[in-house]
Amino acid sequence: MMKGKKAVVLLSGGLDSATVGAVARQQGYQLYCLSFDYGQRHHCELEAAGKVARSLSAVHHLILRLDLNRIGGSSLTDRNLEVPRNRVESPEQEIPITYVPARNAIFITHAVAWAETLEARDIFLGVNAVDYSGYPDCRPAFIQAMERAVNLGTKLGVGGEDRYFRLHAPLIELSKHEIIQLGTRLGVDYGLTHSCYDPDARGRPCGQCDSCCLRLQGFAAAGLEDPLAY
Amino acid sequence: MMKGKKAVVLLSGGLDSATVGAVARQQGYQLYCLSFDYGQRHHCELEAAGKVARSLSAVHHLILRLDLNRIGGSSLTDRNLEVPRNRVESPEQEIPITYVPARNAIFITHAVAWAETLEARDIFLGVNAVDYSGYPDCRPAFIQAMERAVNLGTKLGVGGEDRYFRLHAPLIELSKHEIIQLGTRLGVDYGLTHSCYDPDARGRPCGQCDSCCLRLQGFAAAGLEDPLAY
Repeated sequence: MMKGKKAVVLLSGGLDSATVGAVARQQGYQLYCLSFDYGQRHHCELEAAGKVARSLSAVHHLILRLDLNRIGGSSLTDRNLEVPRNRVESPEQEIPITYVPARNAIFITHAVAWAETLEARDIFLGVNAVDYSGYPDCRPAFIQAMERAVNLGTKLGVGGEDRYFRLHAPLIELSKHEIIQLGTRLGVDYGLTHSCYDPDARGRPCGQCDSCCLRLQGFAAAGLEDPLAY
Repeated sequence: MMKGKKAVVLLSGGLDSATVGAVARQQGYQLYCLSFDYGQRHHCELEAAGKVARSLSAVHHLILRLDLNRIGGSSLTDRNLEVPRNRVESPEQEIPITYVPARNAIFITHAVAWAETLEARDIFLGVNAVDYSGYPDCRPAFIQAMERAVNLGTKLGVGGEDRYFRLHAPLIELSKHEIIQLGTRLGVDYGLTHSCYDPDARGRPCGQCDSCCLRLQGFAAAGLEDPLAY
C-alpha cells in the first residue's frame, strides 16, 4: 500500500484544529503536527495538542518556541491584561483583547518553513471565520493572500509549478456546531481538546470566556454533549 | 521639536540592514530595531546588530528567539550542512544551501506583530534582489505580497485605511556597491557590521563564502575599502 502524502497540520489543542487534523487524516495524508509554545497563559493547550496528535497517529509532533510574550499586545500572552468573561457581543463585532498580533501569519510562515524542509506541500489550518470572535487572521482573504505570498517567497514555491504550497482551511466557512458534527463523524475525541482562555490551576475550563461560550453553544446547537467537565 | 514616527527596522548585523537603518533614521523615524536569535551558527551577527542599533541611536533593540534550527533545511542553521566557499555562480543562479526556508516571511510577520503593538506602521527591510544570491524571499513580488497579506490579517491593517502597514525595502533594486555608497554618505560605520556566513572562532570573516565575496566585490566596485580585517 502506498503511503500517503505528507501534510503539516497546525495543532493548537483546541476543537477546530483537532477536527482539521481528522479531515487531513481522512484524506489520506501522513500528519506532521506543529504546535507553538508562545507564552500563552497555560500549558493545558500544549498537553491537549500532544494528546490529539497521538490520537491522530501523527508521524511527528513538533513544538516550536516563539517569543510572542515579549511582543505583548494580547491578554493571551500578557498577564497584565484581563481575559474578558461573559462578554456581550457588540453588533460591529469588535476585535477582542484576546487577539494576538499577527499570530496566524507567524504560525503559517513557520508551517511553510517546516513543510519546505519536509518537501510537503499541503498545510492544514483550523481557522474559522464564522464564529471566531472577529479575528482578522481567520478570514478567507487573509489565508489566500498568505498562500500567494509564501509561494512567491520560498524555494519550492518559486521553483515548482504555480501554487506549490497549499493552505487548506476546510473549516473556514463552517459554524461551530457544523465543525463539531463533522469531527464527531470523523471520530474526534473532543474530550482530549482544550478551548478555554482562562482555565483553573488544574486545567479545568472556566465556561465563561469567549472560547468556552462558543464551544458550549456549538455543542448545544449540534445536539451533542461536551465531554469536558466545567 | 516633534518626535519622529516609529519604525521597526529588521537588523541582522549585516551591511544591508545597517544601511536601511540609516535610511530610516535620515527620514526622521524613531528606530525600534528587531533581531532574531534563530540558531544561526555564530553570535557575531547579533553582537554586530547590537552595535549597529546603538550607533543608530535606536529607542529599543529587541532580540527574539526563534526555533529555526529545529526546522533545519539550511547550512546557516544546520551544522551538518557545509557553507559553500569560492562558489562559481551558475548562470541560472541556483538558490544556495544557505537559503533558510521562509526566513524573511517569518521575520516580517514578527516585525508586523511588534509594529502593531507599538502602533507603528512602517517596517524597514534590508532585502536586496540584485546581487543577493538568488533568495526568493528577497524579491519585490514577495515583499508586495507579504504587505498585502499582513494588512488583511491584522487588527490595525483591517481597521485602518488601506495599507496601514508599509514594508519599506529601499535597497531592493540597488547593487551592493550602490548600497555601500549610500550608507557611506549616511555615515554608516561598516566596521561594526558582520556579513560572513562562516567566521573563525574570534569572529573574523572568512573572505570566501558567498556573503564575504559579495561584500568585498561591493567595496571594490564602490572604490572604498572594507574596514573589516579578513
